[in-house]
Parts: sequence; structure tokens; C-alpha cells
Amino acid sequence: MINQLYDTSLGLLTDLYQLTMAYGYWKSGKAEQEAVFNLYFRRHPFQGGFTIACGLSSVIDYLNEYRVDEQDLQYIASLTGSDNRPLFEPGFLQYLRAMKLKCSVDAIPEGTVVFPNEPLIRIQGPILQCQLLETPLLNLINFQSLIATKAARMRLVAKDDTLLEFGLRRAQGPDGGMTASRAAYIGGFDATSNVLAGKLYGIPVKGTHAHSWVMSFDTEMEAFETYARYMPNNVTLLVDTYDSLKGVKHAIEVGKQLRERGYDLGAIRLDSGDLAYLSIEARRMLDEEGFEKTSIVASNDLDEYIMDSLKIQGARINIWGIGTKLVTAYDQPALGGVYKLAAIRNETGEWDYKLKLSEQAIKISTPGIQQVRRFRDNKGFISDMIFNIEAPPAGKTTMVDPYDFTRNRSFSETSVFEDLLTPIFAGGKLIYNLPTVHDSRERVREQLSCFHKGIKRFVNPHTYPVGLEKGLFDLKTDLIVKLREGD
Amino acid sequence: MINQLYDTSLGLLTDLYQLTMAYGYWKSGKAEQEAVFNLYFRRHPFQGGFTIACGLSSVIDYLNEYRVDEQDLQYIASLTGSDNRPLFEPGFLQYLRAMKLKCSVDAIPEGTVVFPNEPLIRIQGPILQCQLLETPLLNLINFQSLIATKAARMRLVAKDDTLLEFGLRRAQGPDGGMTASRAAYIGGFDATSNVLAGKLYGIPVKGTHAHSWVMSFDTEMEAFETYARYMPNNVTLLVDTYDSLKGVKHAIEVGKQLRERGYDLGAIRLDSGDLAYLSIEARRMLDEEGFEKTSIVASNDLDEYIMDSLKIQGARINIWGIGTKLVTAYDQPALGGVYKLAAIRNETGEWDYKLKLSEQAIKISTPGIQQVRRFRDNKGFISDMIFNIEAPPAGKTTMVDPYDFTRNRSFSETSVFEDLLTPIFAGGKLIYNLPTVHDSRERVREQLSCFHKGIKRFVNPHTYPVGLEKGLFDLKTDLIVKLREGD
Repeated sequence: MINQLYDTSLGLLTDLYQLTMAYGYWKSGKAEQEAVFNLYFRRHPFQGGFTIACGLSSVIDYLNEYRVDEQDLQYIASLTGSDNRPLFEPGFLQYLRAMKLKCSVDAIPEGTVVFPNEPLIRIQGPILQCQLLETPLLNLINFQSLIATKAARMRLVAKDDTLLEFGLRRAQGPDGGMTASRAAYIGGFDATSNVLAGKLYGIPVKGTHAHSWVMSFDTEMEAFETYARYMPNNVTLLVDTYDSLKGVKHAIEVGKQLRERGYDLGAIRLDSGDLAYLSIEARRMLDEEGFEKTSIVASNDLDEYIMDSLKIQGARINIWGIGTKLVTAYDQPALGGVYKLAAIRNETGEWDYKLKLSEQAIKISTPGIQQVRRFRDNKGFISDMIFNIEAPPAGKTTMVDPYDFTRNRSFSETSVFEDLLTPIFAGGKLIYNLPTVHDSRERVREQLSCFHKGIKRFVNPHTYPVGLEKGLFDLKTDLIVKLREGD
Repeated sequence: MINQLYDTSLGLLTDLYQLTMAYGYWKSGKAEQEAVFNLYFRRHPFQGGFTIACGLSSVIDYLNEYRVDEQDLQYIASLTGSDNRPLFEPGFLQYLRAMKLKCSVDAIPEGTVVFPNEPLIRIQGPILQCQLLETPLLNLINFQSLIATKAARMRLVAKDDTLLEFGLRRAQGPDGGMTASRAAYIGGFDATSNVLAGKLYGIPVKGTHAHSWVMSFDTEMEAFETYARYMPNNVTLLVDTYDSLKGVKHAIEVGKQLRERGYDLGAIRLDSGDLAYLSIEARRMLDEEGFEKTSIVASNDLDEYIMDSLKIQGARINIWGIGTKLVTAYDQPALGGVYKLAAIRNETGEWDYKLKLSEQAIKISTPGIQQVRRFRDNKGFISDMIFNIEAPPAGKTTMVDPYDFTRNRSFSETSVFEDLLTPIFAGGKLIYNLPTVHDSRERVREQLSCFHKGIKRFVNPHTYPVGLEKGLFDLKTDLIVKLREGD
């Protein structure tokens, strides 16, 4: 969406420390030193068992259109330090002015099911450039992956019901809403209420009327009749402005009028009250009058847990309108994706492998030029192995649980697998055919169907095995030991 | 930010049901009927006692630049109903093409402390236009008010400490990050890491380096020395890449080198571990070596509760870097603002007052062309009264608690007050001088200082009295009774 919504240069859409580090690399002669960074997350959101990768399309737009313009340069030239003198000297601004992105980017396609520590994006290029891109890449991937994952969870509960995204009014600004509409669709939603998202992304749009429509007439009946008169081919009547079950009665009367004209009552919508009770009553009333095909839409602060509960209670809802809890990912509104240096090429042309140490094992990063190999058997995916492409597995390979080295498993030469990271940019040039939003949505469906149902449950989901290839595990361990010994 | 970031028409940044209702109004001859809608929220976020109004500047930009262009019209002409025929007939598209906004808008200025049920924005004009604007206005006000409120809460805990916003990487897309930076500044933050926000909004920017800077060198000492060599006027050293207290030692050595060159060590930053313990130790180490003026920055998933706890534990942090929990308003990532029809002018030119009924008293809207009168005594603000400007209070007035009619209070002719809603647009024309972001930030500070501290505590805050003027209370009650009797 970057290319469609934005007119200003977004070269400064980054943290100041990326610029000061860039300056430091430039001043110390390291600007062009080749580095590799990985973008990954450490835990699934929502205490779940899977995450959906999303946002690559925005990353591609961002990189394609990357520029630092004269206004940007003027602004950063104006920044000063504690002595009121400029932070950056003119030669650095000149360097940025002339800079062309020449990074290579590999990434896991949108709609892929991914797991902690797997690089969603691997970027390789001049360390100065990789550094500047950290913030925008995290901004774009973190949020969209979060929402696609939330949407996919709702799809799991909804099964074949229709899912409508209604979140624009509660989203974080215009493109918070736009991106959420797109990510929700990829995650499995059927349509959005957001008309601009429909126009720009080709997502189906849905909607009929609000309480204010009903309130603007003297009676609910008049409001329903007027709506049905002028839009007989798009009739979902919101029945709870005054009294939900009286509203259903009025809707049924209007449904009869519609039938006389050769149309039908599409749906009624419940937006408050006891949705289990009201939907069961409404279904009975509709069925008794021969409106078996009329759908029942429910909305009102729904999420996957409430949907699940309503289904258990026998609610007769077959269209779900979901806003706030989806587009803000209410119960965990951020995915904690990070971006870590994994290797840097030294003066002899060899890779120096790098990791970030921490007292918490989960926060220690993994070195290497990483690829993710996903193994399958005839029932589906069985485990993922992260390896260093500079020392790729050959023949029989062993993978080790990074948090428990006593646990490992082996794969033979004949194991079936696919490697998840795909080349996107080579030396700054786009070499990837971006799938449509519909393809990415289909990929989510296919991918989820290939995993054991244990990872898809909400409470205590199964932990899908993701390990490090033995050589990479040893490399990491050696580095940790060395760093812990260092001063 | 709308005007600065967006190039596409945002006329379709709305829910489809606004368009279908607009079509219904147009078809039924009601399009130009004059209506009044109020935008308000029902509960403070974070179980707090106050909310900061924010987002009006974006609303003004949105309304100023409102347009539905030919591409938009083509898109909505392509939408079809259940019979695969167009939803909208060509005459309606023609109407939208020719439409100019002519609404009048009154609003509470950015940075004002506001309470449930008070209209943050009141819009009056053709019902069709008011309806189309519902979604974008909610989108812009809900999120920004939420973040400004969160920031103000952090400012209350921080007292005179420095607050830095670091959230861009975890925000909901580029303008989620941009708007959050602006709203956080208004709420009381001192600076942001977001360079584009600095450039576009004139907010101070701050930042030095990340772990990757340290990791890109062979040793931490070399990384610190190199940084200080080239940016001696902006030195905050991140000390936790390998071992925080060893890092402090290295920072002190670099501080001594800086002093020899006539500079000083600005700060050290702690980003992991036990921030209470580490900051106390770091303070001691710095002080022992004569670096009493060197600040200690802390970051790592902070929010107002953790800050409070750290302060109670004696942590020696005087600069707080806050990202995720601020820009996503983590513990309540949405403000539930709503937009309700309150009056519509009937054929005789009189107002018909309107309300939305509900089984829950809190969800029943208030009718009338509302203004908010804030009374004060010599110590500060004492209560707010919502009244109908068509029947303004004169002389001695009584205000009633809308949820307990037995509670009321009276004001005399000599009571001191100010009316909060200010004219912004008159008949579509902007008539308001927008304050700067710095003015709005100052307004938050001033406003909060005029309220009793009870509303500012986090646990069980005092409920500031907000009532309905007696005449408006009676109008509302009569309408409720009439609607409950209706069929």
C-alpha cells in the first residue's frame, strides 16, 4: 500500500539511531562492509501455536520506492548535538544523496505459516543500508503478520461461516485500517467494510446500514421499508436499534414485501444483547415464516474466543462482523519482531558470524546466513530446520533443539522438503513476481491444512519442532561461549 | 498528517454502509435534511479517570482535502448486489461528483482533558454528508486520543524525567507510527526516535545506537570508542549487548576520553535485565568516577505501571525510552468512540431530537445540539455540564447525573465556566486557527494541573462529575419513555 497511499519520501521513516549509526559506519570506513541481518520473532502472538507471515508486499513497495530527498537532507542537516553543532557533516549528506539501495533480500512468502526464530526476511548488503532499513521493515512486517494471524485464528473457529472485517473506525489511523483490511483478508476473511481497501486491493466490500439510518426515520418499520425499497439487492437489516426481537418481526414483514417484488431478505444483523439467545430466537422466527435462507449477522466486540463460546452455546450466527478485536489484535496488540545482525564480511572476505548475547536463552540471536528447510511426510509438515547456507546440510542431517541440546532428530537424503526463503531482491533489483492478495489468502488456507491440528488449538497448543542444523547449532554455541568469556 | 502523507483521494476511506445509507437518503429525498451527530466515548481507557482529546488536526486536514474522485466513482459504480446489478444508480454518482462538504463542525481543542459522553466533535449539516464522515472521524480521533492519554499517564509517573518515544517499529504501519509519535508528544513526551515525525511535525528527535553497532565491531570497547570519536556531541552508549555492568565500565572509560576532548558522556542506556538493580549499580559506578551528570536511559517494554514500580524500588533512571506499550496502548489498544445521531430537522424547520436506545443505560445516547460547560472554582475545575444550545442554561441552573437522577447540583449566575466546544468549520469553511503541536502539549499540562489529583491515579480513580443540564436530562428521559412504549 505504500506506493498507493504515500506521496512524501519515506526515507526518514526510521529511528534516528539508524542514521547516527549509519554516520558512524560511514565515518569509520565501514559503510560498505557487507552484512547480513535477519528479521524474526521470538514467540507466537496470542499464546498460539502458529503465525502467518504477512507484509512482504509492503516491504517490496517500500524498497522499490526508497529515496532520501532534498527536503529530508535539509532536515537532517538541521539536527544538532549537545554542543549545538550539527550531528552530521556535509559529506555524509552527500553520501546519502547519491546512495542507491543495493541490498539482496530473501523472504518467506506472504501467507506462509511461520515459527519463532525463523527469518521472515534476510537482508544482505552494505551494513549502512541494512541498518537504515531495520525500522521500516519491522514496522511493516510486525503489524501485518499479527493481524493475518489473528484473522486466521478467527477463520479456524468460523469454519465455513462468512467473516466480515469492520475495523476501520477503531484502527490506528488510515493506513492502520488499510493494512488491517488487507492482512485480515489474507488471514481468511471474506470481505471488508472499508471501501478504500476494496478499491486499492481488490478485496470484496460489504455493508448495509447503521443505527443512524433507523433513527433518522419516525419508526423502524419505515426505515426498513425505505431501505428495502431502494436497495432490494443488498438487504441486511440491523434489528437492535430499539428492541431486537421486535426488529426481527419488522424485518420479516419487509422480507415478505421483498419477495412480492422478486427479491429476498438477505440477512438480519444483531449488534447488542445476548447474541446466543437472540440468534436462536431470530432463527426460529425467520424459519417459521419461511426465511430459512436469510442469514444472521452478529457484531459487537467479537473475537475468536467469543465466537467459540457462542458456537458452543448453539448460537445460530452464520456471518460474523469483526472490528476492534481484529484490527488492533486486542489481546496482544504487537508482535515483537526483531532484526539482528548475523554476519559481517571481514577484510579477508570471510564471514564473521555475529550474535546478540542475553541472560535469557530465548533472547540470544542466531548467527549465519540463514535458510529454513521445512520437511514433510505424506500427512503434512513435520519440522523446520534453520541452517546456514554457507554450510548447507548434505546427505543425512541432524537438527538440534536450540533450547535443549539433548533433543534432536535426523533426516535422510530422501527426506522431502522445501526451503522457505525465496529471493526477492538481488543487488537492489526486484526479481520476484508478487502473488495477488487472493493467492496469499489461498496459501494461508493450504498451509494451515498441512499442519497437525495440535498447533491450531488456542489453549496450550502443540509446539511445532523448529531446530538448528547441527553445524549451525555448534557455531552458535561456540560463539556464545567465546562471548561469555570475553571482557 | 493526512495532507502530508497521502496522495490518493481519501473519500472512500469509509465503511460501505455509509455509502449505502447515503444512497438511501438520496433516493428517499432526505440527503440534504439537516442533522446533528456527536462523536464521544463511553468509558475512559485503561480504567483511568481522564482522557486527552487528540486528533482534531487530522480531522481538519481530512475535511479540508475531502474529495471523491473519478477513480473512486468508477470503483463504486462497479459494486453490485445479490442480483449482480449495480448497487448505485448513475444519478447518485453524479450527486457525489458535484458534492461539496458544507457541514459545520464544533470540537473540543486538542490537548483538552475530556470525560465520557462529552461530544469531542459535533457535526451539523446534510445527513448524507454527516453519515459519510462517521468512519474517518472515528478512525482519526479514537486512536490519537488513546495514545495522547497513554502518554499523559506516563508523564504523570515520570514527573520531570525525560520521556522518549521509540515505537515506530511496533506501530500499526507507517502512519500508525507517525500519528503515535505526534499524539505521544502532545500527551507529554519530550522527543521521538521517528525521524519523519521530527521532520513533518517539528517534534524533537533523539537516538544514538543499537546492539548491532556494538556487534559489528570485534569488541564493545572498540564500538564505544568509535562512536564517541565521530559523534562526541551525542553520546548515549547502550551497555547491555554482552554484559550490562561491564558495559558501564567501558562507557566510563570512553567518558574519560571524551572529557579529555572537551565533551562529556551524555548517557548510558540499559535495555534488558533487572532495571532497578542495574540502574542503581550503574549510578553508583558513574558517580564514583565523577560522571554525576551522565544520564541513565532505560528501555525494554516499559509502561506507566512498570515505571511506577521501578521508581518505588529506587531505580536511578532519569530518561525513559518507551515504544510498544505506548504506541499500541498495549493494555487497551482501542478507544471505543462512537458517533450518534442527536437531532434531525423536520419539515416544519424544528429539530426532532434523536437517541439510540439500549438495554444498558450507558449505551443510550443523548439527544440535542450539545455543548459542554466546564465550571471552576479558585482551586480548579469542579464539574462539566452537557447542555442543548437550543435551550441554553440561563440564571441558576441544575445539572443531573444521567445514571442517577437523584444526584444533582446547582450553579448560580455568577459561577465561572468555559464552554469547551469551539467552532472549527462553518458551512464547510475552516474558521479555526489550529494551535501548534507545542501549544497542544502545553494545554495538556495546564489542563491536568487544574484537576484534582484523584482523577489522575491509576487504581480506582475518582469519577469527575459530568451531568446533563436539567432540561436536557428531561428531554432525554421523555424520549426514552416514548421509545420504550413504541412498537
